[in-house]
Amino acid sequence: MTNLGIGLIGYAFMGAAHSQAWRSAPRFFDLPLDPAMTVLCGRNADAVQAAAGKLGWQETETDWRKLLTRDDVQVIDICTPGDSHAEIAIAALQAGKHVLCEKPLANTVAEAEAMTAAAEAARANGVRSMVGFTYRRVPAIGLARQLVAEGKLGTIRHVRAQYLQDWIADPEAPLSWRLDKEKAGSGALGDIGAHIIDLTQYITGDAITEVSGQLETFVKERPVAAEHSGLAGTAGAERGPVTVDDAAVFLARFASGALGVYEATRFATGRKNAIRIEINGSAGSLAFDFEDMNLLHYYDATEDARTAGFRRILATEAAHPYVEAWWPPGHLLGYEHGFTHQVVDLVTAIADGADPAPSFADGLRVQRVLAAVEASSASRQWQEIPE
Amino acid sequence: MTNLGIGLIGYAFMGAAHSQAWRSAPRFFDLPLDPAMTVLCGRNADAVQAAAGKLGWQETETDWRKLLTRDDVQVIDICTPGDSHAEIAIAALQAGKHVLCEKPLANTVAEAEAMTAAAEAARANGVRSMVGFTYRRVPAIGLARQLVAEGKLGTIRHVRAQYLQDWIADPEAPLSWRLDKEKAGSGALGDIGAHIIDLTQYITGDAITEVSGQLETFVKERPVAAEHSGLAGTAGAERGPVTVDDAAVFLARFASGALGVYEATRFATGRKNAIRIEINGSAGSLAFDFEDMNLLHYYDATEDARTAGFRRILATEAAHPYVEAWWPPGHLLGYEHGFTHQVVDLVTAIADGADPAPSFADGLRVQRVLAAVEASSASRQWQEIPE
Amino acid sequence: MTNLGIGLIGYAFMGAAHSQAWRSAPRFFDLPLDPAMTVLCGRNADAVQAAAGKLGWQETETDWRKLLTRDDVQVIDICTPGDSHAEIAIAALQAGKHVLCEKPLANTVAEAEAMTAAAEAARANGVRSMVGFTYRRVPAIGLARQLVAEGKLGTIRHVRAQYLQDWIADPEAPLSWRLDKEKAGSGALGDIGAHIIDLTQYITGDAITEVSGQLETFVKERPVAAEHSGLAGTAGAERGPVTVDDAAVFLARFASGALGVYEATRFATGRKNAIRIEINGSAGSLAFDFEDMNLLHYYDATEDARTAGFRRILATEAAHPYVEAWWPPGHLLGYEHGFTHQVVDLVTAIADGADPAPSFADGLRVQRVLAAVEASSASRQWQEIPE
Amino acid sequence: MTNLGIGLIGYAFMGAAHSQAWRSAPRFFDLPLDPAMTVLCGRNADAVQAAAGKLGWQETETDWRKLLTRDDVQVIDICTPGDSHAEIAIAALQAGKHVLCEKPLANTVAEAEAMTAAAEAARANGVRSMVGFTYRRVPAIGLARQLVAEGKLGTIRHVRAQYLQDWIADPEAPLSWRLDKEKAGSGALGDIGAHIIDLTQYITGDAITEVSGQLETFVKERPVAAEHSGLAGTAGAERGPVTVDDAAVFLARFASGALGVYEATRFATGRKNAIRIEINGSAGSLAFDFEDMNLLHYYDATEDARTAGFRRILATEAAHPYVEAWWPPGHLLGYEHGFTHQVVDLVTAIADGADPAPSFADGLRVQRVLAAVEASSASRQWQEIPE
Repeated sequence: MTNLGIGLIGYAFMGAAHSQAWRSAPRFFDLPLDPAMTVLCGRNADAVQAAAGKLGWQETETDWRKLLTRDDVQVIDICTPGDSHAEIAIAALQAGKHVLCEKPLANTVAEAEAMTAAAEAARANGVRSMVGFTYRRVPAIGLARQLVAEGKLGTIRHVRAQYLQDWIADPEAPLSWRLDKEKAGSGALGDIGAHIIDLTQYITGDAITEVSGQLETFVKERPVAAEHSGLAGTAGAERGPVTVDDAAVFLARFASGALGVYEATRFATGRKNAIRIEINGSAGSLAFDFEDMNLLHYYDATEDARTAGFRRILATEAAHPYVEAWWPPGHLLGYEHGFTHQVVDLVTAIADGADPAPSFADGLRVQRVLAAVEASSASRQWQEIPE
Repeated sequence: MTNLGIGLIGYAFMGAAHSQAWRSAPRFFDLPLDPAMTVLCGRNADAVQAAAGKLGWQETETDWRKLLTRDDVQVIDICTPGDSHAEIAIAALQAGKHVLCEKPLANTVAEAEAMTAAAEAARANGVRSMVGFTYRRVPAIGLARQLVAEGKLGTIRHVRAQYLQDWIADPEAPLSWRLDKEKAGSGALGDIGAHIIDLTQYITGDAITEVSGQLETFVKERPVAAEHSGLAGTAGAERGPVTVDDAAVFLARFASGALGVYEATRFATGRKNAIRIEINGSAGSLAFDFEDMNLLHYYDATEDARTAGFRRILATEAAHPYVEAWWPPGHLLGYEHGFTHQVVDLVTAIADGADPAPSFADGLRVQRVLAAVEASSASRQWQEIPE
Repeated sequence: MTNLGIGLIGYAFMGAAHSQAWRSAPRFFDLPLDPAMTVLCGRNADAVQAAAGKLGWQETETDWRKLLTRDDVQVIDICTPGDSHAEIAIAALQAGKHVLCEKPLANTVAEAEAMTAAAEAARANGVRSMVGFTYRRVPAIGLARQLVAEGKLGTIRHVRAQYLQDWIADPEAPLSWRLDKEKAGSGALGDIGAHIIDLTQYITGDAITEVSGQLETFVKERPVAAEHSGLAGTAGAERGPVTVDDAAVFLARFASGALGVYEATRFATGRKNAIRIEINGSAGSLAFDFEDMNLLHYYDATEDARTAGFRRILATEAAHPYVEAWWPPGHLLGYEHGFTHQVVDLVTAIADGADPAPSFADGLRVQRVLAAVEASSASRQWQEIPE
Repeated sequence: MTNLGIGLIGYAFMGAAHSQAWRSAPRFFDLPLDPAMTVLCGRNADAVQAAAGKLGWQETETDWRKLLTRDDVQVIDICTPGDSHAEIAIAALQAGKHVLCEKPLANTVAEAEAMTAAAEAARANGVRSMVGFTYRRVPAIGLARQLVAEGKLGTIRHVRAQYLQDWIADPEAPLSWRLDKEKAGSGALGDIGAHIIDLTQYITGDAITEVSGQLETFVKERPVAAEHSGLAGTAGAERGPVTVDDAAVFLARFASGALGVYEATRFATGRKNAIRIEINGSAGSLAFDFEDMNLLHYYDATEDARTAGFRRILATEAAHPYVEAWWPPGHLLGYEHGFTHQVVDLVTAIADGADPAPSFADGLRVQRVLAAVEASSASRQWQEIPE
C-alpha cells in the first residue's frame, strides 16, 4: 500500500489528539493509503523532539516551511493557534500539499477568504483541503444528519445550540493564548461557538443567513500565566487584559426560515464540554449533548401519541456511522474517536481524488457567521451573512 | 345522582390520601354515583374530630362497628395498620358494606384467606371489595400493562423490581408501628415489597410461582418514639427491638418461565420512593421509576437498529389511562392522583355491579408470595407459592 | 374561622385548576381564613351552571359585575382571556375586592399600568392583588430562589430559559382564542414566554433591562375550530389567520450584567411543557425542567473537583418550600399543586394584611419585557425596558 | 528505556482491544518500560498474519509454546477462550513470562486453583500475573472504590449489580463459541456476571461469602453459525444445542453483612452493555451504568436534606483516576481506555517488582463465586463460598 506522509505542526492538546488519530485509523479501518507519521514540527527544538518521541513521530522540524519541501510529506496537518493558519495553509497548498487545518479556519474573514481561494486553486491540481470540525464525526452527530436528510424531521422550525464550558469561570484562572485576541482571533465565539455553528448547519443542511448577537467579557483582567501554551497555567502576581469574549450569545435565522438560538460560554459552571443541540421539525425532533456523546435522542411525531417519546439511541450499533470498525454495541467511543474518523475520511478522499468535507469554503462560511456576530454585538442590530 | 356514603377508618398518611381522592374524583371524572364524605372513624374522639374538620368529613365515630350499622354509609374504606384489616373487612362485608382495604391485605395468609372467603360470600349479595394497590393507577403503569397485553414485549424473559426508600437508614430513626411485627406484619417486605409484587404481576399478567429470598434487619434496636403513629417521631433514651425486616431481597420464577429479581428496602440511602420496574421481553422492554412517575420508558426491538432506543414516554397525553380528565400534555400528575383513580374505578364498579380490581383474591396472592419469601428466608431454599 | 368568599370568573382550563386549589388548600394547610367556593361566573348560564356543579361552586352568575356587589364575595379570581383582565380587575379593586388575576397581567402595557395603578390605590384601603405566575410555587423553583438568595451561586453570569410546547406544531391544529391577538394579546410570547421571564427574574432577584428578540408565525392560516374556547378543537374547511406569534426568541441583559437567552415556542415537537431554566453563577449553577418538576439540579463549584457534580435534588423533603404539608419524601407533587400554594399565600397575605407576591407591579414588569421583545422584533434592534 | 516484549495470543474482539492498549499506553502515560508489540499468535497462519498487519504486531507465531521460548517476549497476553487459559498461563509462568490473562480466569475452579498456585510459585521468581478485569480501570469505577475506601458510604448495606446485554435475545441469533460450555465454561454467568462480581468486591473491598442463584437457558437450540469465532455469525439451517446459561440471577451475602442482588443476562432487550452497580451505605450511595461510563452518581447522606441529592460526577477531571494523561474535562473516554490503563498498571508493576491487581487469586475468588452460583442453581439452596 502506498505511503501517505504526514507532517504535523503543533503538539499541544490538538497535536496529541491528531497523533492518536493518525496512529489508530489504520488499525481499525481499511484505509486506501498508509499514513506515515513522518515529521512533527514545532519552534522549540528540544520540546518538539520530546513530543515526537512521546507522540510517535519519526522525525522533527522547527521551521514549518521545511515540511513543504520534503518529498516524504504529502499532508500538512495544522494544529497551531489561529493566527498562523492562513500563512501555513496557503503556502502548503501552493506547494502541492494536502492540508488538514484545525478550526476555526482563520482569525478573520479576510484570511479565510484567502485560504479558500488558495484551496480552490490547489484543487485544480488535485490538492485536497479540509477544516477540522471534528465533532461532525461523532457517530450520533452523523446519525442526526442522516435522519434530517431523510426527511424524518419534516420542516425544521427551531435550532437551539449551546456549547458550555466552565474552565475560566474562576476569575483567578490565568491568561493563556486562548484569551489573547492576537493569537486566538476571538474567545468562546471562535473556539467553541464555531463548532455549534458548523454542527447545526451540517446536521440541518441549511445555512444561517442573519444573526443578532452579543459578546461579553465578564472578567477583564487575569493573572499572567507562567506559560501561555495550554488551557491551564500557574497564576502570578502580574495581571493582563483579557482581549477576547468570555461568552457569546446570538439569535439566528436560517435560509429555510428556521429560528436559531446559540450560546457559547466558558462560564457555565459545572458544564465541562456540553455541546447541546436540539432541532425541532414539523415531523420530529433531535437532541444531543456531548457530555453523553454516544447518545442521540430522537422524537418521531408521526407515531401514535400513546407510545411516542424521545428515543434514547445509543449510537454504538454497526448500523451507525463509523461504528462497525470499533466494538460491539454498548461499548462506548470517546472524544478522540472523532479525530480518527476525520483521518479516515481525509485519507479516503485523497485516495479517491474527491473533495473531503468540511471544505475551506465551509470553514469560511462559519467564519462569516462569527464575524457577523461580532459586528452585530457592536452595532446592536441584526447582521446579514454575505453569501 | 345517587349518593354513595363513605366511612373512612384511619386518618394518618393513608387517611389523608384517601380523603383527597374522595374529594377530587367527582370534580374531574364523571362518576355514576356521588360519593359523600360521610363519616371518619378513629379511636381518639378529639383527634378524629380535628382530623374530620381538616380532611373534610361530615361526621365522626370512635368505634368502627358503628359505621357498619349506619344506613348512610355504603363503603368502608380501611386505612388502619394491617393487624385490624381482617376483622374490620370481614365484619363490613358481612354487614353488606362495600370495602376498600389498604394493602397489604392482611398480616398473615390465614387472615387474607378469611378475608377473601368473606369477599366471595359477600359478592354473591352484590357487595364489592377491593384492595388498595394504588400504584396500579399511575398512568404510566396502566400504559405498561396495556403494552404487555398487546404483545408489544413478546415473550417476557426478565422482571426486575426494586422499591427503595431510606427513611430508617439512620440507626437513630425511632421505632414506629411500621417496625412492630404485631402491628405491621412485616417490614419492608409487606409495606413496599407488596407493591412491587402486585405491580409486576399486574403489568405482566403473569404469576410468581416460586421464590428464594432473604430478609434482613440491619438495625436491631431503635429509640422508642414518643408517638408511634407515623413515619416520623422523636427519639428518646429508651430503646426497643425492631421486630420486622429492614430489607427483603428475593429471586422469583413466573408461571411463564420469566426470571424475577426483587428488592425492597428502607436502607437505600438517597432513594426516597424509588419503585423501579424493568421488564425485558423478546420483542421489547419497559422501564419505570416512581421518582419520575409520569414517565414510561419503552424499547421496541422490532425497530430498525439505527433508530431503536428506549422511548421516554411522558404519560400525560389524553390517550394515556386516566389522563384525559386532568390537564394538557406535559402538566404532571403526582402521587395522590393514583388514589383518585382508585376511587373512580371503585365507584364505577359499584355502580356497574362489576368486580373492581385488584380483588381480595389478588391481595391474597400477593400475601402468599410475601409468606413464601419469609419461609424461604428461614429455610434457605426455594419456596413454591400455593395456588 | 372567618369565611373568605371567592368569586371565580372563567371555568375552562385555568378555572378548573383554580377550583382544585381553592378546594384543596384548606385540607392540607392551616389557613388563617376559610375560603368558601361561593360563586362561579361565566357568560353562558347553562354552561356555568354545569361547570359549577362539576367544579364544586355553590352559586353562579353570568355577569361578572354582579360579583362585585355581593357581600359574600371578598376575592375575585380572574381566569378569563387577557383582553378582559384590565376591566374586571380594576372594577373589582375599586369595589374593594381582593384580586387574583391570571397571567399575563394584561394584553398591553397600558392596561397593565392602569391595573397596577388601581392596585396601588386599592392597597391603601387594605385591598390585596396578585398575579398568577403559579410556577413560582413549584417547590423546586422556590428552592432555586432560596439558593440564589443565600449566595450559593455567587455572581450570576448566565440565564437560559426555554418554554417548549408542541401543541400547534401540526399545521392542521385549529384556531383557538389563544391564536387570536384580540383575545390573547400575543401568542407563545405572552402565554408561556411570560412565565420564563417571571421565573428567571424571581429566581435571580434580578431584572431584565434590555432585549433583542424575534417573533415568528410559522403557520399563517389554520382551520377555524367549531369552538374557540380551549386548546383543542375540531378542524373544518374554513381557514382563518393566525394573528399571534408561534414562537418568540430573545437575548436579554440583566441589571447585574448577566446574559439571558430565552425561547418560547409551541413548535418544539416532542416537548410538551418543558420549562427549562439554567442559571450559571461564579460559585454554582442550577437547572430545572418542568417535565421533571420535582427535581432541581444544583452544582456547587466550591466543592472538591473530584466529587463535584450536579446534584439531583428531589424537592419532596419537608425542608423544601410547601412540601411539609403534603406527603413523605419521594411522593411527587404535580402541576396543580402550584395553584394550591398560590391560594395558601394569597389567603395568608390577606389575613396578615400583607402584600402578596407577585404583585401587579411585578406583572407590569413582565409586560414591559414582552412589549420590548415585540418592539425589538419589529425594529431589529435592542430595546430597553423602561423602569 | 528498556523494551518489554509482548506476545499476544488471540486476535478477535479482545485481541483488538489489547492491541490498541499496548499501542496507546506509552503515547499518553510515562511508562517505566517500553512495551514492544513483538509477536501475535494464532493457529491459522494466514489469518494471524493478516491480523498482525492490521493490529500492528511485528511478527507472528502459530504455536503459543513458541512464545515461551523467545527471549524477546517478556509478557504473555492471553486473549483466547477460557478453555485454554489454564494450560497457557501455567506454562508461561513456569517459563518465567509475566502473564496477563483475560477473564474469567478459567472455566473451572480446579483450573483457577492450579493457575493461582502457578502464579504464587512464579511470584517467588519475580514473575508477575494479572487477570483482565478491565472495567476496574474505568475512571468512574476507580473513583467509586476511593470513595468507599475513604469511608464516604459508611457501613455498606446493599449492593445491586446488573450486567445487561441483548445480543442473543433473538432466538435466531446463531451459536458461537460463547454459547458452548466446552469453550466458554459458562454463559452470561462467567462472561459478564464475572465482571460484576469482581467490580462489586473491588469497589466495596468486601467479599461475597454465600449465594443463592438460578441459571436459565431460555433458548435451548440455535442455528449453527458458519463460523464460531465471534459475537455475530450467519444462521444456517442446522441447529445445535446451547450448552450454557442465557441468564444468571443470584442473591449474595457479603462478609460485612451487606446484601447483594446480581443479574447477568444476554436477554435484556434494549440494554447493550449496561453494567449497573448501585451501592447503598449508611452515609451515602453510589450508582454507575457503563452505558454512561464517564459518570458516577454519588449521594452524600450527611448533607443538609434541603440540598442533598445524587451528584452526577463527570469523571473526566484531572483529579480522577488515569484522567490526567488524557483530555481536558468533559472530553469523554471510551470502552478501550480501560485496557490502556490495564497496560499502564501492569507495566508499572513489572518495573516496580510489585504485584499487579487483580491477581490470579482475585480471579480464583470470582471463579469460586461463579461455581457457587451454579451449584446453588442445581441444589436450589444457598451455597457458601469456600475461603
